Amino acid sequence: MNNNKGIVVIISGPSGSGKGTIVKEMIKDDKYALSISVTTRSPRVGEEDGVHYFFKSKQEFEEMIHKGELIEWAEFCENYYGTPKSYVEKMLREGKDVILEIEVQGALKVKESNPEAVLIFIVPPSLTELKNRLVGRGTEKEEIIEKRLKRALEELDMIEKYDYLVVNDSIKDAAEKIHTIVEAEHLKANRNLDLIEKIKMEGF
Amino acid sequence: MNNNKGIVVIISGPSGSGKGTIVKEMIKDDKYALSISVTTRSPRVGEEDGVHYFFKSKQEFEEMIHKGELIEWAEFCENYYGTPKSYVEKMLREGKDVILEIEVQGALKVKESNPEAVLIFIVPPSLTELKNRLVGRGTEKEEIIEKRLKRALEELDMIEKYDYLVVNDSIKDAAEKIHTIVEAEHLKANRNLDLIEKIKMEGF
Repeated sequence: MNNNKGIVVIISGPSGSGKGTIVKEMIKDDKYALSISVTTRSPRVGEEDGVHYFFKSKQEFEEMIHKGELIEWAEFCENYYGTPKSYVEKMLREGKDVILEIEVQGALKVKESNPEAVLIFIVPPSLTELKNRLVGRGTEKEEIIEKRLKRALEELDMIEKYDYLVVNDSIKDAAEKIHTIVEAEHLKANRNLDLIEKIKMEGF
Repeated sequence: MNNNKGIVVIISGPSGSGKGTIVKEMIKDDKYALSISVTTRSPRVGEEDGVHYFFKSKQEFEEMIHKGELIEWAEFCENYYGTPKSYVEKMLREGKDVILEIEVQGALKVKESNPEAVLIFIVPPSLTELKNRLVGRGTEKEEIIEKRLKRALEELDMIEKYDYLVVNDSIKDAAEKIHTIVEAEHLKANRNLDLIEKIKMEGF
């Protein structure tokens, strides 16, 4: 007897917070749909069009902006990233909760146009831990790591604008916490006005 | 690594919604403390002072009001009912989530003075079901049942002011849903500002 409309669940967090792995853990559950972003950056090795991203030219991307086909978009390191509107809306109508893994700037834009979206910020247990994780990857130059850490600190300043904060002590626990948040959000009174109306209308 | 401060959890719902039974189910879990109300009404058979209520004279109650010792109080069927402040504050400091089972009027007063309180409204699956439950008790006159149903409808008008809505299909499920809500509330960013500050302060 819950409401059936899906919820937009936005997951953000600094690079190295583990948000990507948490999202992978979450979408094992069929009730979630993962929104696929559009980008103008080049595919990395192993990335597939329509799976990891929709890869578009700059011109195609700008056309999508002008046609209002994106919920949000942002420029980051000279590339565009955006979230296509049609897929998200289709999934919501089907009652799926849609996960958007996007950065802070985009997340706040979505919240502006869609106040019912739920913003969840993932943090590593500590910044020391974050640094260890970034260094541990072994794929990045020191200079890039420093840049990411600086950006992580800037992003932490935006946590207050998020609805929830999840500390990533372990992937499984963090994913479980997000499930809990989404379940609770489905019980929000303002997401169940139809149900309230129905209860009132039944009369005696 | 969660915050340790307790949350005030207010449970309301029409007579016959089953809220009393749900609360009994919930406090089996040690993490909750149940606030005991003060009242000027006479004890019913089996009710004990300090267990079901603190029973006070009208004069004693009015003294508590004047000394600011009540979080909220209301008059209902010519009797006073109120929530003592000291016990609730003590439990919150100890990190317990405190359950207040109070009616709508009092609940909204608490929310005013304490916006961090979580308001949960329990509804029966339908008003027909509610009527059946009230009649099924067999302890009330038809006149009183009609009065309660009328009041139930009035209370439903206030659901929008509540944070969450839980349909009492089964006691166990409803209690489980409230646990979920409270867990999610502990993850709210604005309840974890200390943690955010701590993460920022750690530096690199």
